[in-house]
Amino acid sequence: MAKAIVLGGGMVGSVMAADLAREDGLEVSLADLRPEALEQARSRCDGITGVQADLSDPARIGELVADYDLVCGALASHLGLAALEAVIDAGKPYADISFMAEDALGLNEKARAAGVTCIVDCGVAPGMSNLLAARGVALLERAERVEILVGGLPVERSWPWEYKAGFAPADVIEEYTRPSRIVEGGETVVREALSEPELIEFEGLGSLESFNTDGLRSLAETLDVPCMIEKTLRYPGHIELMRVLRHAGFFSKQPLQVGDVTVRPLDVTSALMFPQWTYEEGEQDLTVMRITVEGQQAGGRVMHRWDLDDRYSVEEQATSMSRTTALPCALVARMLLSGEIDLPGVHAPEALGTNATWTESLLQGLAERGVRYTYRESRLG
Amino acid sequence: MAKAIVLGGGMVGSVMAADLAREDGLEVSLADLRPEALEQARSRCDGITGVQADLSDPARIGELVADYDLVCGALASHLGLAALEAVIDAGKPYADISFMAEDALGLNEKARAAGVTCIVDCGVAPGMSNLLAARGVALLERAERVEILVGGLPVERSWPWEYKAGFAPADVIEEYTRPSRIVEGGETVVREALSEPELIEFEGLGSLESFNTDGLRSLAETLDVPCMIEKTLRYPGHIELMRVLRHAGFFSKQPLQVGDVTVRPLDVTSALMFPQWTYEEGEQDLTVMRITVEGQQAGGRVMHRWDLDDRYSVEEQATSMSRTTALPCALVARMLLSGEIDLPGVHAPEALGTNATWTESLLQGLAERGVRYTYRESRLG
Repeated sequence: MAKAIVLGGGMVGSVMAADLAREDGLEVSLADLRPEALEQARSRCDGITGVQADLSDPARIGELVADYDLVCGALASHLGLAALEAVIDAGKPYADISFMAEDALGLNEKARAAGVTCIVDCGVAPGMSNLLAARGVALLERAERVEILVGGLPVERSWPWEYKAGFAPADVIEEYTRPSRIVEGGETVVREALSEPELIEFEGLGSLESFNTDGLRSLAETLDVPCMIEKTLRYPGHIELMRVLRHAGFFSKQPLQVGDVTVRPLDVTSALMFPQWTYEEGEQDLTVMRITVEGQQAGGRVMHRWDLDDRYSVEEQATSMSRTTALPCALVARMLLSGEIDLPGVHAPEALGTNATWTESLLQGLAERGVRYTYRESRLG
Repeated sequence: MAKAIVLGGGMVGSVMAADLAREDGLEVSLADLRPEALEQARSRCDGITGVQADLSDPARIGELVADYDLVCGALASHLGLAALEAVIDAGKPYADISFMAEDALGLNEKARAAGVTCIVDCGVAPGMSNLLAARGVALLERAERVEILVGGLPVERSWPWEYKAGFAPADVIEEYTRPSRIVEGGETVVREALSEPELIEFEGLGSLESFNTDGLRSLAETLDVPCMIEKTLRYPGHIELMRVLRHAGFFSKQPLQVGDVTVRPLDVTSALMFPQWTYEEGEQDLTVMRITVEGQQAGGRVMHRWDLDDRYSVEEQATSMSRTTALPCALVARMLLSGEIDLPGVHAPEALGTNATWTESLLQGLAERGVRYTYRESRLG
């Protein structure tokens, strides 16, 4: 019987482990330092074996994975790179969603030499966004433009933010302040954070507002398309409030003298926002994503588009964020284990999107689990 | 030659002293602790004699005013009540705009016994607003409703606040958090701060937004009108931003733990807002006010309305805020000195509005100085 281990037992890791544990002939372990996380994951699916381990120690990861045929990563971003390297050193196939800040592809040569396949950024965005962008590019004779729109939102919209975050407010605010790199005329150009807000209609959701975010990541290097942009989606109005708070200085990391003490306004803002931006237990979220690839095909301009409108799963008691992120990773992991994907090196998911069979297989697996991407092709002009 | 002294040499006090100093046969002194304030006031009008004095010491005020025939007050609000009592004890007529938090009318008996007339809250709002509300009531057989709308605004509207304050941000925020008392059905009722925003058109200004503020002060007691309300005016959108900041907790006085330190979010907000809400040297402001009094008269419903749209005075290099506040006080002061107004006791300006001659005389004096109230009477329904 094959054995898989998931590193990291948070919301995403536990959904990943539960999905893998439903596979016949696969024994699944979940590693985390926190006993309560292991307990909670096992309550989601009792076929999971919990392993308490300090995953901030790469040597411990090396020992841990030695006994398994397949490794999945769902770690906090700052642990991502060291874990990746430890898994490569252990010579195990790896599917990971750890969203590390560092350049994972820098370990490509090392993984290739070791003959192991590692797919990083293997969630929804980054993840399916990369894969489908590459799929669209592969369908065209000449790709001219890639646009990725993506947002995680609460179903219930409450004044004034109409937003909640699956992660810490300071990380959300980081998205609102970091300049965003987009590709224009074949060059990487920088746009101010929160810039170019635009209202866009989504069937079943109404109007959402998009704004520039720094989300292209590996795509800026791996795809040869002259115009590429990633924008984040919010309910209309949220962006304006964030622009106001930023303008007023509430996102500033500059220490401010207030009476006898010195504080960073960002820390005050994070402390105030934390309770307001946190999902309640069982509160419903949704994930909306649209990947559009335009270009020349068969003598005309053609657009390929994939739309996702995924909702909180009442049945699974799992957020849309965790399912749309965990399930692509769990499915790719299976394909690594079966040898269907065998691509020694470290790759982002666009390396899979060039292959029609792999893409179909993934979209099919997601659809079976209720995560449905709608595809359409249109002729433009 | 008669002698007048103005207590407090800030923006309002210096305009008051300069106006009085232009009167033939009147010697004018200005008292303040800060030499630079006296210097600046004298640069506005060289006929003013500066007197350096600590006005937080009532005994010093008593000594100081003994030598004068008339006293005007333009002090910080926390100094107002003690100064009023000192002037009454000295037996001098007093016109004051110090906007004290305490009930000045509590000193009415003392002033009456001493035979001195003191008019407090003698600026624009409170001030002319009280006087004209009372005038409207006096014109009607039965007054049914008084509404005062007033705002001080920058001429140039800059995103996102479209607002600047002639005073400290914490005092503005106090207006945005203190529950507002209004009169409804003859009873005082409390409305949440920043509540009931309403768009209203003003000729020459466009749409402004009004919201409930706690500004009726003495009117709630002195006028017998079943429905009275005071609302503050801002450019549209400002109120919504203030509601968002309040909701988010940025106006909270509750200490918040942030890392190693404890701060009140309000103090952080004040520190951030101070530079953004402060008028630049020479920056133009405006004052808009509308007083509406409705009721029964000559067998039908009638409305009396006064409108003010006053702008920064380029000629005088004085803000509209300082002129609209200082000039009513300076004009009432002259009427006290001449004996035209002789009403022993402490009164708010509504005590003057019942008298048509006094009202006319004041409106005439203001118009001569460029501060023009437009009056119209309409029959309703």
